[in-house]
Amino acid sequence: MSDSTHSQSVDSVDEAWMRVALNAARLGHGYVEPNPMVGCVIARDGELIGQGHHERFGGPHAEIMALRSLGSLDQARGATAYVTLEPCCHHGKTPPCADALIEAGIARVVVAMKDPFPKVDGGGLDRLSDAGIETTLGILADEASEIVAPFVKQVRTGKPWVIAKWAMTIDGKIATTIGESQWITGKESRAEVHRLRGRVDAVLAGMGTVIADDPMLTARPPGPRPQIRGVFCRSRLPDVKSKLIRTATDSPVRLFVSDLIAAEQVDCQRGSGAAVVMLGTHNRTEMIQKAIHHLGCDMMTNVMVEGGGELLGSFFEADEVDECHVYIGAKLFGGNAAPGPIGGDGVAALADASVWVRQGVDSFGDDVRIMYRKR
Amino acid sequence: MSDSTHSQSVDSVDEAWMRVALNAARLGHGYVEPNPMVGCVIARDGELIGQGHHERFGGPHAEIMALRSLGSLDQARGATAYVTLEPCCHHGKTPPCADALIEAGIARVVVAMKDPFPKVDGGGLDRLSDAGIETTLGILADEASEIVAPFVKQVRTGKPWVIAKWAMTIDGKIATTIGESQWITGKESRAEVHRLRGRVDAVLAGMGTVIADDPMLTARPPGPRPQIRGVFCRSRLPDVKSKLIRTATDSPVRLFVSDLIAAEQVDCQRGSGAAVVMLGTHNRTEMIQKAIHHLGCDMMTNVMVEGGGELLGSFFEADEVDECHVYIGAKLFGGNAAPGPIGGDGVAALADASVWVRQGVDSFGDDVRIMYRKR
Repeated sequence: MSDSTHSQSVDSVDEAWMRVALNAARLGHGYVEPNPMVGCVIARDGELIGQGHHERFGGPHAEIMALRSLGSLDQARGATAYVTLEPCCHHGKTPPCADALIEAGIARVVVAMKDPFPKVDGGGLDRLSDAGIETTLGILADEASEIVAPFVKQVRTGKPWVIAKWAMTIDGKIATTIGESQWITGKESRAEVHRLRGRVDAVLAGMGTVIADDPMLTARPPGPRPQIRGVFCRSRLPDVKSKLIRTATDSPVRLFVSDLIAAEQVDCQRGSGAAVVMLGTHNRTEMIQKAIHHLGCDMMTNVMVEGGGELLGSFFEADEVDECHVYIGAKLFGGNAAPGPIGGDGVAALADASVWVRQGVDSFGDDVRIMYRKR
Repeated sequence: MSDSTHSQSVDSVDEAWMRVALNAARLGHGYVEPNPMVGCVIARDGELIGQGHHERFGGPHAEIMALRSLGSLDQARGATAYVTLEPCCHHGKTPPCADALIEAGIARVVVAMKDPFPKVDGGGLDRLSDAGIETTLGILADEASEIVAPFVKQVRTGKPWVIAKWAMTIDGKIATTIGESQWITGKESRAEVHRLRGRVDAVLAGMGTVIADDPMLTARPPGPRPQIRGVFCRSRLPDVKSKLIRTATDSPVRLFVSDLIAAEQVDCQRGSGAAVVMLGTHNRTEMIQKAIHHLGCDMMTNVMVEGGGELLGSFFEADEVDECHVYIGAKLFGGNAAPGPIGGDGVAALADASVWVRQGVDSFGDDVRIMYRKR
């Protein structure tokens, strides 16, 4: 069915309740993937009477949580439900939410956006309409789309959402001329990075970073979600004494290995606990595409690339970045020879530069984080 | 006298009125220099009854403007005056403001900060106290200091306040690998740069920028203040056909010339309308120090360095930058060879990096501007 059969009127009361539902949806970040984050508010006579969100993968959906939050289910009769994503109409891990709303006697359902999941895709709205419920579609659709963009990408392409993260000085440097880089940003910024690590499915880095910084790439403290630590190994493998390999039995490590590395070398890694993915190529773009495909097949929704410059450069050249988190620490290094965050060949003509849409700007002490998404 | 003889109590009502006075003070930016920006609010019984600011160099001070804004001068009797800078007690271009407040019958004067100008420096507060007026010092002193920092620097050191400005991509590049740079930021950002140009005393650039971009370095549209366009000429002079030299009779150009350039070459510039300052050195740091000293002797309060990377690098290495305006355009160039904003040798040890304090963060479309001051 087309969107036009559902009312598209924009109403400030509807927007206000939908905003509450969107904030509820965001609470699922890191808990619900590969499901989408969804929030639901139930309101009647200008009052919020119920609220819920999809809290964990496999758990009840947002609509069910909101209905359960009511003092008694009678309260739902004649009320309006605001849902950030179209209620489902199929039997998955849980019974269809559209049916639950109908049974509860909800009079009107306001939906921010249709569910692109092929088994839903308008079917939930149709089911509600057919039961005589008034439906409104499209309230704060842009905000709702932003929240579920990683889910939508995974559904449509089978690939995870890729977040590139880097920290640089106010003059765009990630290290001094002799390679010192700890720390460019302050404690608060670094805590925020760890918070995000704990919500994604994979943290990815290149061998240059592993050699230079001997990083753990873990979330400290751990977040709601376990993640793999992935390393791109084009010409070298990590030292068995590196922190990464020494902790591989505690927290999974996956090595994405090019065909430049001999099988005997790879064999030395067996027994370390690190998983090995042979990419069968050493072309940088192909390596990234194959690794991303591999992570997507594992049903990963969000992955984060933390550098260094060479790996990030290859990710941008492969056009595999969806979102950038740029941390700007309040230091200045100067120097033509000090490295910047994105290596590789770069673009020659300015017209070929990738163009980004600014999302949030946040500050952490004197640091600033700017988030961007692909235009 | 010491600060402690004036009350230091902090009161939220006092802060609220002082904030209004500070906003009034800012309206003088570009109009009052080399005088300080000052604002004044007159309040009684919780109501604002008068307001004014120092509007132009040589014109009446903020206190006089605020008194004049009253319906009748009788209203001042028993009222409180909030002034962002200590009222003057000396006869300058105008009679002392302390006397005007006393004569008007003001009962209490709240001052954000003392005037560091040697002829005042506490004398205004003493004069008010001696006349039986209650005085409070230190309300929003930090904000007040920020506003008059360029004035204070000029009074204390004889040197202008130096603002370094650059525009870079989200990956810290100011041009692509083949040197394309127009434009990294959008129209709104560039308009904001022109707004600032129109409020400073000088816009400074290096010969690399003059050759690469053939810039005008003018404020378009013009602001409240005429400014000189200054070019550092270490090994080359601008072409007589450059836009800069061709417009030198319309808007002043000053060339800061090193001793690497022969006198005969400099003679060719005579008649172009550009003023020439022979620096007698080709040491980069000394060139900058001498030029800044020269601009300070001309009673300049604010100067802006717009690049390129080599000149900015020298300014930072000479430790002559007070404030940075970093524009971040929502583009990504990538490339190890693409230049960053600050050239020169840079620091080797991270501990030697200069550390900055973040001031405002503003957005202009998808662009972000972050302003910093020296810690």
